[in-house]
Amino acid sequence: MDDVYIIGTGMTKIAEHWEISLRDLLVEASLKAVDDASISLKDIEGIFVGNMSSGYLQGQEHLGSLLATWLGIPGTAACKVEAACASGGVAFHQAVLSILSGLYDCVLVAGVEKMTDAITSDITTALIMADDQEYVAGIGATFVGLNALVYRTYMEKYGVKEEDIALFPVHCHKYAQYNPYARFRNPISVEDVLRSPFIADPIRLLDSSPICDGSAAIILCSENFLKKNGGRDNLVKVLASSVATDTFSLNDREDITTLSATKIAFKKALKIAHIEMNQIDLMEIHDAFSILGVIHLEDLGFAEKGKGTMLIKEGQLEYDGKIPTNISGGLKGRGHPIGATGIYQIVEVARQLMGKFDGKQVPDPSIGLAQNVGGVGGTVSINILKRVR
Amino acid sequence: MDDVYIIGTGMTKIAEHWEISLRDLLVEASLKAVDDASISLKDIEGIFVGNMSSGYLQGQEHLGSLLATWLGIPGTAACKVEAACASGGVAFHQAVLSILSGLYDCVLVAGVEKMTDAITSDITTALIMADDQEYVAGIGATFVGLNALVYRTYMEKYGVKEEDIALFPVHCHKYAQYNPYARFRNPISVEDVLRSPFIADPIRLLDSSPICDGSAAIILCSENFLKKNGGRDNLVKVLASSVATDTFSLNDREDITTLSATKIAFKKALKIAHIEMNQIDLMEIHDAFSILGVIHLEDLGFAEKGKGTMLIKEGQLEYDGKIPTNISGGLKGRGHPIGATGIYQIVEVARQLMGKFDGKQVPDPSIGLAQNVGGVGGTVSINILKRVR
Repeated sequence: MDDVYIIGTGMTKIAEHWEISLRDLLVEASLKAVDDASISLKDIEGIFVGNMSSGYLQGQEHLGSLLATWLGIPGTAACKVEAACASGGVAFHQAVLSILSGLYDCVLVAGVEKMTDAITSDITTALIMADDQEYVAGIGATFVGLNALVYRTYMEKYGVKEEDIALFPVHCHKYAQYNPYARFRNPISVEDVLRSPFIADPIRLLDSSPICDGSAAIILCSENFLKKNGGRDNLVKVLASSVATDTFSLNDREDITTLSATKIAFKKALKIAHIEMNQIDLMEIHDAFSILGVIHLEDLGFAEKGKGTMLIKEGQLEYDGKIPTNISGGLKGRGHPIGATGIYQIVEVARQLMGKFDGKQVPDPSIGLAQNVGGVGGTVSINILKRVR
Repeated sequence: MDDVYIIGTGMTKIAEHWEISLRDLLVEASLKAVDDASISLKDIEGIFVGNMSSGYLQGQEHLGSLLATWLGIPGTAACKVEAACASGGVAFHQAVLSILSGLYDCVLVAGVEKMTDAITSDITTALIMADDQEYVAGIGATFVGLNALVYRTYMEKYGVKEEDIALFPVHCHKYAQYNPYARFRNPISVEDVLRSPFIADPIRLLDSSPICDGSAAIILCSENFLKKNGGRDNLVKVLASSVATDTFSLNDREDITTLSATKIAFKKALKIAHIEMNQIDLMEIHDAFSILGVIHLEDLGFAEKGKGTMLIKEGQLEYDGKIPTNISGGLKGRGHPIGATGIYQIVEVARQLMGKFDGKQVPDPSIGLAQNVGGVGGTVSINILKRVR
C-alpha cells in the first residue's frame, strides 16, 4: 500500500456537552486537527464524517456537506460513512482509500456523536439499529442485553469469573484518570464494579461504556502533498487499514464468544502492513462492555481463548507492559461517542507514536493498532499506524 | 485515473413495494448485478450501500454488514455512505476510490430506499434532514417548500413561465412509459401538470418526483480483476467520478437559481476524464422537481441561464436529440427512491452505453453522464462513463 500520512489530529473532551451542538463539536475537533497539521482549510479536498445516529437523534443527515459549510469550505467533496459503532474506523478507512486512489492529496476525517440530548429510551432504540430490527430488535432485545448473552456464555464456556472480567474496566479507569479528554477520570476497584447495579445481568453499570458526546478529527495526506508542502517532524504513517464483517446477528454464529470479523480484518491488516503481530507496541481496542475488551485480546491473538484476563493480571496491558492497551482509558474510561470512537482511538494511537500523548505516554512505541467494532461484531475495522520521523 | 470497469448492473422495479422489505430490495438488486456480471458472490471484496433514511424510517442502520450477511458473504468489508439524496452517486464514488486504491479488485455498490412504509409526515421529516435542522427545518421549512422558493425566484429572474417549466416532467413521463423499471409509465401533458394540485406553490404534484421504494446495484472491478477472470464483452469504464458540495442551505447563496456544486463537480470530472462537454452523448440528471431539471441543464453548460427550457422545445433532450437526457424517465417518471437514485442513474447510463437499455435506446452512444444531487444542492456527484468495447 502507498504512503498515507497522519499530519494533524484534534479532539473535543468527551462529556455531556449540554451547551455544545453536534455541529459545534464537529467543527471544534476539525479545526484543532487543521491547526495541528499546520495546513490551511483550503488544502482540504475531501471530508469524511463518521457518525451513526445523527438522523434519529438530531434529525440531521447530510453531515458531510454540513461540515464543509461550517468549516467555511463549501465546494469540498464530502460524505458521511456509517457502520454502527465502527463508523469512525470505517470512515478513516474510506479516507485512506481516497488518498490511495490518487484523486485526493489531503483529506479530513472526523467522527462525531451527540447522545446526551436524547432521552434514554431513544438512545436504546438508536443503538439497537446496529443489529437486526426485524429479527433481533423486534423480539425486544437491547444492545446491552445481547452483550449480556455474550458475557454469560463466555463465563460458562471458560469458567472465568466476574471478578476477573471486572479487571478490564478497572484497568481502563486507571489510565483514563491521566487523559484530559476522558469522560471518567476516577480510578475504580473490582469491588466498585461488582457493587454497581446490573444493566443486563451479568453486565453491570461499571462494565458499560457511557452515553456521551464527542468529536475527533484527523488530517490525512499523500506523499505528494508532503513534498509540495514541506517536510514535517513527528510523522505517522498508515501502515494498514482494513475492514471486515461477520454475520449481522449473534444467532447466526457458531461461537458468540469470538468475533470472526476481528480475526479477518487483523489478518488482512498484518498482510498489508508486512508485519508480525509481535511488532505491535500498543493498541486501543473496543471495550464497549468489559467482556468485549477481554474477547478482543483473545481474537487479536494476544491470549488463548478464555485466558484474556490473564494479560491484565500479569500487567501486560500496562503502559510499560508487553502490549500496552487502552492507555486512553478505552471506551469505558475515555468514553464511547459512537461514530467518533474509532477516530478517537486512531488519534490516541497516533499521538502515542508521536510521543505527545496527553496522558500516560507509552515509552517509545513504533507501531500501534486501533480496533473499532460495529454492532455485536457485525463490522470490525483495524488500522495500524507507524512512527516514521 | 486508472481503469475501473462496470461489469454488472441490477435494479428492482420502482414502486410502492408493500410486500418487499428494505433488505429484500437490496438483495434482489445486488443478486441481479452479480448474475449480470457473471461473477461469484465470493469475488466481492467490498460492499458500499447508498442510503439516506433507513435509520429514521426503518429503525435499521449498519446496512453494509446487513447486506453482507444477507448475501451470504459475511466477512466482506462493508459500509453505508450517506449524502442525502446524493447518497447513491457518492457511494458509487467511494466504490470507485476503493478500486483505484489498489486494495480492492471487485466491489458491489448498492443503493436503496424504502419510503412508502412510513406515514407522509415522517417522510417530510426524513427529507428535511438533508437541510439544516437547526436553522431551516426549525423554522418550519419543508424540502418541497425550499424548492418552491427556487422555482419562484427562477421564474421572476428569467421571466420563464410555468408552462415552459412543465415541459420537463412531460419529457420525463414520455420516456418513462418505455422503461419497465419506472414508477410512472403514463405520458402526461403540460395541461395535466398545470391542472395538478399545488404541493408548495408554484410546485405542483406533477412537478414532484414520487415517494417510492427501490434498489439498484453495480459491480465494479479493476483491470487486474478482468485479466484474471477472462475478458468480457460490452464493457463500460468509469471515465471520471467527482463530488462537490455547496453551502448547506439556500440562505447562504448569492443566487439560488444555480447549483455551484454541479459546476465544480462537473469541471473536476471533465478534467479527470480528459474530455470536452460536447463529447457527452447522453445524461441522467437529478430532476427531483421540474425546476431542478431545468437548472441542471444550465449549470452543466448545455444552455445559458434562463434558457434551459429551450432545449426541451428544440427537441435536444430526445433520445435521438443533441443531448438525450433522462431517457429513463428521470426522477419524475422513473422515480426517486432517495439513496438508490444515484445508482439507478448510473445503471441506466451504463446500459445505454452497452446498447441494452430496457426502454428507448439512444442510438450508439459512447460517453454518458449521471448527475446526482443531495439536499438543495448541498452535495452533487458527477460520474462519467464510457463504452470501451
